[in-house]
Amino acid sequence: MAEALLLVAHGSRRESSNDEIRVLTRQLAARLEIGLVDCAFLELAQPDIVSGGHDLVARGARNVTVLPYFLVAGRHVVTDVPAEIERLRQAHPDVSFRIADYLGSNDAMVDLILASLSK
Amino acid sequence: MAEALLLVAHGSRRESSNDEIRVLTRQLAARLEIGLVDCAFLELAQPDIVSGGHDLVARGARNVTVLPYFLVAGRHVVTDVPAEIERLRQAHPDVSFRIADYLGSNDAMVDLILASLSK
Repeated sequence: MAEALLLVAHGSRRESSNDEIRVLTRQLAARLEIGLVDCAFLELAQPDIVSGGHDLVARGARNVTVLPYFLVAGRHVVTDVPAEIERLRQAHPDVSFRIADYLGSNDAMVDLILASLSK
Repeated sequence: MAEALLLVAHGSRRESSNDEIRVLTRQLAARLEIGLVDCAFLELAQPDIVSGGHDLVARGARNVTVLPYFLVAGRHVVTDVPAEIERLRQAHPDVSFRIADYLGSNDAMVDLILASLSK
């Protein structure tokens, strides 16, 4: 079962903002033992979520963890990202897609903020 | 010089999302030694940034650190938040307002993502 990670971000009209996500994804890939790590965007940037998921499956992914890179559980986290993942599940019924807790729900966020303040 | 922290988030139409920020702010306040810790929203929620800053000053703040609670350096971080802080500086020339690096620029973000994946 080839494991994969898809980091899902909002997407921006500023390509430099999308590039921040791409750089972060490469940093993640360097830290993870799984070979299939990529990012996708809910809107405004490419690849979109369905395209990014298709690509991971085409590269052999059979067990995909989707990490919503969002700070709060707004409409995007609650409704929009799950809807896109459901499309992927229907297109690839033999592949598991698990949506991890969104970033902002992590209890360690307070520590990251404190670290940001001490910079 | 009374120190203060203003956590600035985007703001959402979903009040539950704004409440996530308020809870986080209380968690931060419990961890910090400064007494003046509050949050404000760029749009869609109250208090807005100028109101939140005014309130801190009214409560005695003279040295305010503003933390942009954003993941990427999009227009909000680069232009919109600084413009609001500039309004506060002009209204309170005797108060220092320092904008800290936005959350997503922290090198430890990779570690937080890895922690989110292992939950």
